Amino acid sequence: MNPFKEFRTVPDASSFAPVTLITETAAMRPDVFGGRAKCLQRLIRLQMPVPTTVALSFDAVRGIARGQMPDIGALMAPFGAAPLLSVRPSSLDPDWGGPGAILNIGLCDASHASLSASLGADVATKLYLQFIQIYATQVARLNPDAFHFDVRGGISAVRSALSAYEAEMDEPFPQDPAEQLSEVLRSMARTWEGTSARLLRQAKGAPSDAGLGLVVQTMAFGVGPGESGAGVIQFADSNTGAPRITGRYLSQSQGREALAAATGAIYLTHDTRGSSLEDENPAVFARLKAFGQIARTRLREEMQIEFTLSDGVLHIIDAVRVPRTVRAAVRIAVDLAESGIIPRDEAVHRIDVQAISAMLHRQVNPDAARDLILRAIGASPGAAHGKVVLTAEDAQAAAARGEAAILVRRETTPEDIRGMHAAAGVLTQRGGVTSHAAVVGRGLGVPCVVGASGLVIDRRGGRVIAPDGRVILAGDTITVDGFNGEVLAGEAPLREAQLDDAFQTLLAWADASRDIGIRANADTPRDARIASTFAAEGIGLCRTEHMFFEGDRIGMMREMIFAANSQERREVLGRLLPTQRQDFIRLFEIMNGKPVCIRLFDPPLHEFLPSDRAGMRDLADGLSLPLADVMARVEAMSEYNPMLGLRGVRLGITVPEIYEMQARAIFEATVAVSRDGLSVTPEIMIPLVSARREVQLVRGQIDAVASAVRAQSGVEFTYRLGVMVETPRAALRAGDIAQDVAFLSFGTNDLTQMTYGLSRDDAGRFMPAYLANQVFPDDPFHTLDLEGVGELLQIGAARARGSHQGVTLSVCGEHGGSAQTIAFCRKQGFDYVSCSPFRVPLARLAAAQIAIRERSSFPTASGKYL
Amino acid sequence: MNPFKEFRTVPDASSFAPVTLITETAAMRPDVFGGRAKCLQRLIRLQMPVPTTVALSFDAVRGIARGQMPDIGALMAPFGAAPLLSVRPSSLDPDWGGPGAILNIGLCDASHASLSASLGADVATKLYLQFIQIYATQVARLNPDAFHFDVRGGISAVRSALSAYEAEMDEPFPQDPAEQLSEVLRSMARTWEGTSARLLRQAKGAPSDAGLGLVVQTMAFGVGPGESGAGVIQFADSNTGAPRITGRYLSQSQGREALAAATGAIYLTHDTRGSSLEDENPAVFARLKAFGQIARTRLREEMQIEFTLSDGVLHIIDAVRVPRTVRAAVRIAVDLAESGIIPRDEAVHRIDVQAISAMLHRQVNPDAARDLILRAIGASPGAAHGKVVLTAEDAQAAAARGEAAILVRRETTPEDIRGMHAAAGVLTQRGGVTSHAAVVGRGLGVPCVVGASGLVIDRRGGRVIAPDGRVILAGDTITVDGFNGEVLAGEAPLREAQLDDAFQTLLAWADASRDIGIRANADTPRDARIASTFAAEGIGLCRTEHMFFEGDRIGMMREMIFAANSQERREVLGRLLPTQRQDFIRLFEIMNGKPVCIRLFDPPLHEFLPSDRAGMRDLADGLSLPLADVMARVEAMSEYNPMLGLRGVRLGITVPEIYEMQARAIFEATVAVSRDGLSVTPEIMIPLVSARREVQLVRGQIDAVASAVRAQSGVEFTYRLGVMVETPRAALRAGDIAQDVAFLSFGTNDLTQMTYGLSRDDAGRFMPAYLANQVFPDDPFHTLDLEGVGELLQIGAARARGSHQGVTLSVCGEHGGSAQTIAFCRKQGFDYVSCSPFRVPLARLAAAQIAIRERSSFPTASGKYL
Repeated sequence: MNPFKEFRTVPDASSFAPVTLITETAAMRPDVFGGRAKCLQRLIRLQMPVPTTVALSFDAVRGIARGQMPDIGALMAPFGAAPLLSVRPSSLDPDWGGPGAILNIGLCDASHASLSASLGADVATKLYLQFIQIYATQVARLNPDAFHFDVRGGISAVRSALSAYEAEMDEPFPQDPAEQLSEVLRSMARTWEGTSARLLRQAKGAPSDAGLGLVVQTMAFGVGPGESGAGVIQFADSNTGAPRITGRYLSQSQGREALAAATGAIYLTHDTRGSSLEDENPAVFARLKAFGQIARTRLREEMQIEFTLSDGVLHIIDAVRVPRTVRAAVRIAVDLAESGIIPRDEAVHRIDVQAISAMLHRQVNPDAARDLILRAIGASPGAAHGKVVLTAEDAQAAAARGEAAILVRRETTPEDIRGMHAAAGVLTQRGGVTSHAAVVGRGLGVPCVVGASGLVIDRRGGRVIAPDGRVILAGDTITVDGFNGEVLAGEAPLREAQLDDAFQTLLAWADASRDIGIRANADTPRDARIASTFAAEGIGLCRTEHMFFEGDRIGMMREMIFAANSQERREVLGRLLPTQRQDFIRLFEIMNGKPVCIRLFDPPLHEFLPSDRAGMRDLADGLSLPLADVMARVEAMSEYNPMLGLRGVRLGITVPEIYEMQARAIFEATVAVSRDGLSVTPEIMIPLVSARREVQLVRGQIDAVASAVRAQSGVEFTYRLGVMVETPRAALRAGDIAQDVAFLSFGTNDLTQMTYGLSRDDAGRFMPAYLANQVFPDDPFHTLDLEGVGELLQIGAARARGSHQGVTLSVCGEHGGSAQTIAFCRKQGFDYVSCSPFRVPLARLAAAQIAIRERSSFPTASGKYL
Repeated sequence: MNPFKEFRTVPDASSFAPVTLITETAAMRPDVFGGRAKCLQRLIRLQMPVPTTVALSFDAVRGIARGQMPDIGALMAPFGAAPLLSVRPSSLDPDWGGPGAILNIGLCDASHASLSASLGADVATKLYLQFIQIYATQVARLNPDAFHFDVRGGISAVRSALSAYEAEMDEPFPQDPAEQLSEVLRSMARTWEGTSARLLRQAKGAPSDAGLGLVVQTMAFGVGPGESGAGVIQFADSNTGAPRITGRYLSQSQGREALAAATGAIYLTHDTRGSSLEDENPAVFARLKAFGQIARTRLREEMQIEFTLSDGVLHIIDAVRVPRTVRAAVRIAVDLAESGIIPRDEAVHRIDVQAISAMLHRQVNPDAARDLILRAIGASPGAAHGKVVLTAEDAQAAAARGEAAILVRRETTPEDIRGMHAAAGVLTQRGGVTSHAAVVGRGLGVPCVVGASGLVIDRRGGRVIAPDGRVILAGDTITVDGFNGEVLAGEAPLREAQLDDAFQTLLAWADASRDIGIRANADTPRDARIASTFAAEGIGLCRTEHMFFEGDRIGMMREMIFAANSQERREVLGRLLPTQRQDFIRLFEIMNGKPVCIRLFDPPLHEFLPSDRAGMRDLADGLSLPLADVMARVEAMSEYNPMLGLRGVRLGITVPEIYEMQARAIFEATVAVSRDGLSVTPEIMIPLVSARREVQLVRGQIDAVASAVRAQSGVEFTYRLGVMVETPRAALRAGDIAQDVAFLSFGTNDLTQMTYGLSRDDAGRFMPAYLANQVFPDDPFHTLDLEGVGELLQIGAARARGSHQGVTLSVCGEHGGSAQTIAFCRKQGFDYVSCSPFRVPLARLAAAQIAIRERSSFPTASGKYL
């Protein structure tokens, strides 16, 4: 649900007349009468030939459902004597569902007779029969089987239908138009209040008190003498948003029959494939084109118009916004702004932030055939195909061979991260949208399907068994669709991300309007390139851990862990230095002078040690140590709660050689790129700080390395030192800490874990139950907990600024890219948020919308109505 | 160090004359001139015959060390012509060390001649020789080997000494008393400023700028004609504090020689063992007794008086507070108050809180011979002997047989807690004062020695090897002394805790003065009995976990974990209910109507599962399940960070049957004791809360159980529901949560872990380095972190009171008993603190002292000086 799709409470809502003839000047508001009623009034104001229409307000319809029928005589007065009418629903959002339209109300023996004279007997009889059938089944709720009468039966079929009605109802078919209308209104009102309709619309995000309005309109017949018919026209392509007239017209039809008709409907514009309205009735076509232009300019939107010709006379029955894909929405908004019809800010404001995610990733081609293996939870958007691998190691091996792999696991753990990095897609048997696989997948931009509980993984057998019994061997190719959670056999055709010109234009406008920075969390050159493509203003969080896991680096890390003393540690780390320096050079080059914030080594060292006996034996061989020594060291280094153990700055202080090496690599990389003419001021971030003294100690260490590198290279450079605020204490003591640093970046993932006393890796076992019982309104790892974690951000930011006016404040972590977090951070005066690369465009757009909303109040239509 | 031993900064300290003759009216303050100078002035005011004394201030002595010697002529003027003088140190606290006294300054050829006339040649020569020796070695710092001259050598020995001096110094022995005095002063001043003296006193808690004063006094000779001699007298027993005159007098001696003399010294009071001052010189004895009485009354303290008889004339040289054990300190303070000499509050205020810990535990009899095996860190006070056991299971088995056991482990883990409960004492090879063993040991009141790094534990061989190579077999008896960290062979004789009448009286007075409640953390009937003995006002934290580990209960817990559904879980828990109910009945009975706050089940369920293959096989047998199923379940339940996982209220909500059973057991126990006439309002505490809704859900559950028990029993009762505030979020949201509860108790252990992002179990690997580098000023698990965790307490307390005026606030956890925590909680308006039972007396005393300090300003002497 779009959280902004709210209307202000109306203090004078009750002052609207519940039943109102729609005129140019009648009081008519969408939150009182619904979107359709409001749109019809707009068409009337634009002088379009809309038949006489009366609107019933939400309150009026609620009254009807409770048995309070309005004065039907008064309601029908505007329609003159013996009118024929249609009734259509008019809720706030048509996506919420509602009763179908009912046409030709008022048809009875008497009007049938007069209609036979004006439209011809066949047409009149057909309309009467259809009306009796609709009325009997939709309004009186009679068994449809009793009303299967063929229209070719003519008047005798009508008589049979009338008899059938009387037989079922014990009373004759109502001949009074007022009675028919009353019953239609009552039926529609009650349908809306029914439990199933209520559940259905609430599932789509409707509030529990969503109202239904109704519009009663004089029938414009598309049947009868002369040129009569009905059609639908629009002026922009629903798929691409490009200017293009599409639609259908069907002679001798009513409503939207033209769209559904198998044969007989014609094109609108001149078309080599068949006849068209433009050719056959150029005057009417020209008037429709003119109406489209007026609607576009005056309603400031691309509209789809429903029209009827009655004996050559054009009526505009209804209009809705052109249905559109997100790609089309972007193109239409940009075109309207470029035409000067809406301001750029409004174009930016119109786009649904979440929806654009679909444009950023590859998708399974929607037109291609799908060989579905299973359907589970789409947890990280995008589609990918590759060969099935069952271990992280195999995924890395495949990546090394240049092959795309889909990593299939029961669930993923931190040990699998390298494999996930290497994989094209991930499929897990367990977990939900906040599982490890899901969170990491989104962070990496790796398509991910989770919770495939019907899947059997036979790792030893090197195969998986699908819910339908199909066996997929390791090495077989499958496709995962992280949008809808589908897993397909073979290599499904993919459609690339749709970063077209309109998208780029829109985001450029968004950047002009937003007032908070957006950076990307990027650990690898690949991440950095994506960040750069999406115009991130820098890297807000570069985690350096992965740099120690790759290839033979982990071997060196293990050697370092087993080193006897500081000198030996330095020696081993010295061998890692050149590759690490190269890592940073690549990042600096890709980011081309934009800031890069590098977090120093964070994980506990035991993550680098093997956990099984075989791995320990290998390690013992490699280090020429007794196995018992290796096992003893591994055991000694294990921790009860690694999250709360010897990691981050604690490691930096107790094993200072690692940070020294990293600082040297960063500074040497800075020097290297500066020799190539690139000016870089690296940002170095200390993780897991809880006391100011930690910062001071590490700062002394890093300053010394900087001085040494300056002296050795003869190149001057500066750097900015900061901390990652992940412990509640660091937030509380931000006033102290800020005095020693250039920036504070709030790591909301860990901060949430510590504020709740809740490990994300372990929360999965009860979080679903907690959300179901509304113990937590949202998963705090998914939606930033403003009341708890947010208050710590607020306290931290205020104290940091209080003691160090110019300190840079930011948020990095899963939450960083969400509109809610951005709005919160902006209000607290944060300088930027940093999020996973694929969220950067969403964040740029969301940030712009928040800024725009603060200074403008654009209408916030969504769904079909204006 | 006593944190209260502070003197206010003196704005006019510089206005004191740096060299001052001590008179009744001279300005003389201990923080300017030191404690000895001040005490001498007091004696003078009491009209005691104190020889002429001049005091040098701290500033004067600092000046001397820098080479600024005061005007020696002016300094010596009050002593008349050719004086003989002593110089003694006068720092703020004599425990900080300092130079030794130097007597007979001014002895030279000339004074030797006149002294030979007045005192006799032998005496004068002996004094001169001794002075030359002291001066040469202590002041001129010459090699003592060069000054070994026998006093029986008479005047020729003096000449040899003078020659030796001149040979070593290239100048003659100074014959000018002023020069001698200058050199003595300079030597003492420089010694004080020396590095080793500085380190030594700082180790004893002296501030870095601690000053040394000096007192220069006319010598009263205890040698010479008539009745001459010197002695020391006191009127209260140093060991027990009981009224008793003790001391020694030695004819023809100076200073404190009587105390050191092997022979010749006599008793003071009439004594069947030998002669006494009372018998030999009843007049002097009577005067000394009178002086003691005056000192006691007017100085409001039991003093030890140093006196000299010079030819029958009594001089009072010095007086210090009677040296005393803590037991004596309590008795003396109580006696003074009961004599009306000091107010009760002052008596309470005088006792060092930490020191009384020694009275609460058994101690190795200090007079007994000790067969020392090793000396390590005394981490939990008390002494115990028992048979060596090497596993927690063996400790439990020994306890079951009624045998005392000493559990010897490399280090302890949570799995050892039951073993520690069962053991009489604990010895670990690793860890420091905040290790698991230390913390748990203190909590349980089990004597504990940790960090015995020289110990080799050969578990398979069933033996341990001492650092000296001695082999101790499992089953051998050893004694651990948790006060001083000693481990002794065999069964050393123990002295019981000394909870004498004076102690009880003092604590009763403390209770009358304190204004914050003190409860005990007590999990077992044994704990509760100790709590009751120490007059805790209730149980503030009863952890119920252990109730599920004992005996065959763990088997039922495992069955419960493997239950297929809620019905099966209820069935298994139903079998635990009677024993659990009995647990609560015993606690209620022991606490006899005092409040008992029961924390509902907290640990993760996987703690109840076996961790090794053998245990899993046993479990599979017991449950008739395939081993693979058991292993799969154990694996599925393991957690990355158990501290942050599925435990506490999260378990209460997702597996509600456990809390239901516990609530039923509590209520049925309440009903049972009420039938025996005991009125109990149980307090039920929910652990690990982070959101209000958690409380509401559990409350609904417990209310339902209460209603059911009321209906079934026909007995009315009430209960109080509260939460344990352990997560930072609970503190921040205390305003919400307080609306649904009767009390909030802050669990500062877990709150510290989460605020710092630091697991206590894992902190040991870097905490020593952190403390050594002063990254943290104190171990936050030992000393409450007021800046971080304390602020959360403050926020939580203020918000809770803000939304629920009458809500009860408390702190439970390791920190609860410390004076610093009590002072903080009292200031924040907390109702009580709860601490381990053995800390209760300390907490009562500390709380009283804090309250007393707020309304009175008693002098805060400690050490020897007044």
